[in-house]
Amino acid sequence: MSQTTQRQETDGRITEEQIAAGNRAYELDREHVFHSWSAQDQISPMTVLDAEGSWIWDGEGNKILDLASQLIFTNLGHKHPKVIEAIKEQAEKLCTVAPQHANDARSEAARLIVERLAGDINHVFFTNGGADANEHAVRMARLHTGRHKVLSAYRAYHGGTHLAINLTGDPRRFASDKASDGVVHFMPAYTYRSYFGAEDDKQEAERAFNHLRDVVMLEGADQVAAIVLEAIPGTAGIYLPPPGYLESVQQLCDEHGIVLIFDEVMAGFGRAGKWFAHQHFNVEPDIVTFAKGVNSGYVPMGGVAMDDAIYATFAERVYPGGLTYSGHPLAAAAAVAAINAMDDEGVIDHAQRLGAEVIGPRLEELKDRHPSVGDVRGVGAFWAIELVQDRETREPIAPYGQTAPVMNEIMAECRRRGALPFMNMNRLHICPPLNISEEDVLFGLDVVDEALRLADDVVERK
Amino acid sequence: MSQTTQRQETDGRITEEQIAAGNRAYELDREHVFHSWSAQDQISPMTVLDAEGSWIWDGEGNKILDLASQLIFTNLGHKHPKVIEAIKEQAEKLCTVAPQHANDARSEAARLIVERLAGDINHVFFTNGGADANEHAVRMARLHTGRHKVLSAYRAYHGGTHLAINLTGDPRRFASDKASDGVVHFMPAYTYRSYFGAEDDKQEAERAFNHLRDVVMLEGADQVAAIVLEAIPGTAGIYLPPPGYLESVQQLCDEHGIVLIFDEVMAGFGRAGKWFAHQHFNVEPDIVTFAKGVNSGYVPMGGVAMDDAIYATFAERVYPGGLTYSGHPLAAAAAVAAINAMDDEGVIDHAQRLGAEVIGPRLEELKDRHPSVGDVRGVGAFWAIELVQDRETREPIAPYGQTAPVMNEIMAECRRRGALPFMNMNRLHICPPLNISEEDVLFGLDVVDEALRLADDVVERK
Ligand SMILES: Cc1ncc(COP(=O)(O)O)c(C=O)c1O
Ligand SMILES: Cc1ncc(COP(=O)(O)O)c(C=O)c1O
Repeated sequence: MSQTTQRQETDGRITEEQIAAGNRAYELDREHVFHSWSAQDQISPMTVLDAEGSWIWDGEGNKILDLASQLIFTNLGHKHPKVIEAIKEQAEKLCTVAPQHANDARSEAARLIVERLAGDINHVFFTNGGADANEHAVRMARLHTGRHKVLSAYRAYHGGTHLAINLTGDPRRFASDKASDGVVHFMPAYTYRSYFGAEDDKQEAERAFNHLRDVVMLEGADQVAAIVLEAIPGTAGIYLPPPGYLESVQQLCDEHGIVLIFDEVMAGFGRAGKWFAHQHFNVEPDIVTFAKGVNSGYVPMGGVAMDDAIYATFAERVYPGGLTYSGHPLAAAAAVAAINAMDDEGVIDHAQRLGAEVIGPRLEELKDRHPSVGDVRGVGAFWAIELVQDRETREPIAPYGQTAPVMNEIMAECRRRGALPFMNMNRLHICPPLNISEEDVLFGLDVVDEALRLADDVVERK
Repeated sequence: MSQTTQRQETDGRITEEQIAAGNRAYELDREHVFHSWSAQDQISPMTVLDAEGSWIWDGEGNKILDLASQLIFTNLGHKHPKVIEAIKEQAEKLCTVAPQHANDARSEAARLIVERLAGDINHVFFTNGGADANEHAVRMARLHTGRHKVLSAYRAYHGGTHLAINLTGDPRRFASDKASDGVVHFMPAYTYRSYFGAEDDKQEAERAFNHLRDVVMLEGADQVAAIVLEAIPGTAGIYLPPPGYLESVQQLCDEHGIVLIFDEVMAGFGRAGKWFAHQHFNVEPDIVTFAKGVNSGYVPMGGVAMDDAIYATFAERVYPGGLTYSGHPLAAAAAVAAINAMDDEGVIDHAQRLGAEVIGPRLEELKDRHPSVGDVRGVGAFWAIELVQDRETREPIAPYGQTAPVMNEIMAECRRRGALPFMNMNRLHICPPLNISEEDVLFGLDVVDEALRLADDVVERK
């Protein structure tokens, strides 16, 4: 065990009083708080007593590196002083106004967001999070086209409300997709586990696109309102679309008047080393949905950014949708501060460089040494390690849609050693705050490196 | 024109600088902000430069009394010092954690909420607003019962996301209800415009219940997962359920194992002069959804409070739903402060008394004097004035689902005189912050009194 990854001792930051308060919080949590995506009596939530930058302190006062940016949303880390200051100022100035009014924080947030998108995306409809952003994006596309069907990718995640969970392509939708409500799923482009027998990105781009084109034809191109795609699929495995794929999809959409919606809820706002992940490619979507990184989740906010053509549909005709907290001033002020901080502090370039020069190379090294690592891939601060039982067959170490004891053991070991990646099925995702230091991220990857021995054991036992 | 309702002059609070900033906010709003429920090029949003208590200052620095609590959510008014302080403190302490962790602000908010509900409602699933609360409540009911159909009332409003807008019974759902997704609408109990020819509350309670019972039978009682009801319908017209109606509905639900969901998004948290509106009746729902008043909208938050039986369904089985900002600490801290402030300051009793002794009697007076006033009704700080062309026929002054020029004129006149009620179709709603002073609310009602002459003119012209 290397010196750097010794168990992080409690560093004295957390007082006895805080620990007692945390214990009480835990008890009340177990009595009264119902948790997302969980069997309520089978969980033991980690208490978070404090957090700063890329670090959190658990209920015992242990300091842990957050390689998951919570749920991939604290893009600026915790306690960014400028965002906190902006929230405090706006709290004094004006916490909230109704959505029908005009408000300076909301206006400025909208301006800053569209400024970072292609020329004709000029309008923002603000929501509370990612799910409702996708719900409204689809409604806009349906009304814009007068068509009902919506295509989205298997494996994708688009949110937890009814339509968003139906758009979702992973098993979490099964409980709710009795009425698919016009959603049709297609196979994603995913070279490492190609659904088309492709052997490289070039084949995958071609075959995955042909498949999507065929689905569009078989569903009726003039029946399809929208294609919804995570620009880079996140929870599903951070597989970058192979070069040319998204460009072809856009052409297909243009040809048939289909609205192209990129879900940038997870990949946007610097996560992928650019303001928006789709900016790695030569594409211009009609609609971009966002949340999370827009203000690092300091205040709940999401939104739909749309181009002039979509906007024009609702210029003289009422848009039949809305929500009480659309364009919430406190959330908007946090977004303004977060976006400006990202600019001023060169956070996105830092993430891009960290990905290219630090995380990527270190993960390649891990792959070389660990027989359990089947693939590593990513960009910016957005990386996946795919664990397999066998490198040849690529059989995942946990079956699709499930977890495996070894995955939980790896997570426990990582936590014990002081760093927490994000886990999904057979994958670990390395998605730290964009402004993490090189030193910290290397510490985190050392922890992962050591925990991966548990996965190697599984491979070796076979 | 009485002295008290002279146009509120700018009172010097707003500086030239603020007005300039407001002008810029307005310009950017028109360029970049897409508004809820609107034809984007047909609106001229009012700029809100500042607000305090029950008052707001518009883009020209005019002081206006907010009789709508924005969108019926600033139950504590603007700039409540204790809620602001709590937000600032929590912003310093910890803005956000992922939903899977335990956090003291979240735990305490859950505890305070269930403490205000009946004995067996012990668990809270937090969401971002009202729409997603209703979406998740329905999903829980469906999985709890293993049934798919959901019954909700015509006219009701339940939110803007796909399932919530399908639950909604007003015309805003028309654009999105191609796939009703198992939602069946029934006629509400609404004595003033009885759908059953009832002449009083007693008849209405009986007939409206019999109708609902018949719908349940015709849909198949064992097919129905849930009945969703606004405890007191808000946007649809603040019609209190006639005595006995909700009690019968609960019996029906109990008899057939149907989950009873009360949507308390608008009516809850003191609006109706009790913590929850259904507490005016002798009923115990299985699920209560909330948002808005829980923290006066200072930070976006909603939620689903459920009883032990619903919880038990997801004790050992995964609940297939969630969201990134579930139980957001900043929102939760605001909720804790808001709930405690309501307690400490006797805000709910104040609202109840204001309704009974000030607003109610003053509205009855208005009704006596204005031939255009067909009905006034409400409780607490939750009141409707229904405007008619003819008191005998009760023909509304604006058709169902539409507005009328005179309604817009009344609103403009109210604004000119310095008070803004909420408008919906042929109704004005008087829903000020719960802690408004008697003097202020009387000023507001004087403004409405005078503006109602415009409605009287319509009646007299007939
Ligand atoms: C790509 C993507 N879309 C949508 C969502 C849903 O966002 P929210 O949880 O804010 O509703 C997520 C959340 O993880 C996401 O990753
Ligand atoms: C009764 C009721 N339910 C649900 C909602 C939807 O809440 P939100 O706008 O926060 O989604 C509202 C909003 O006005 C409401 O009045």
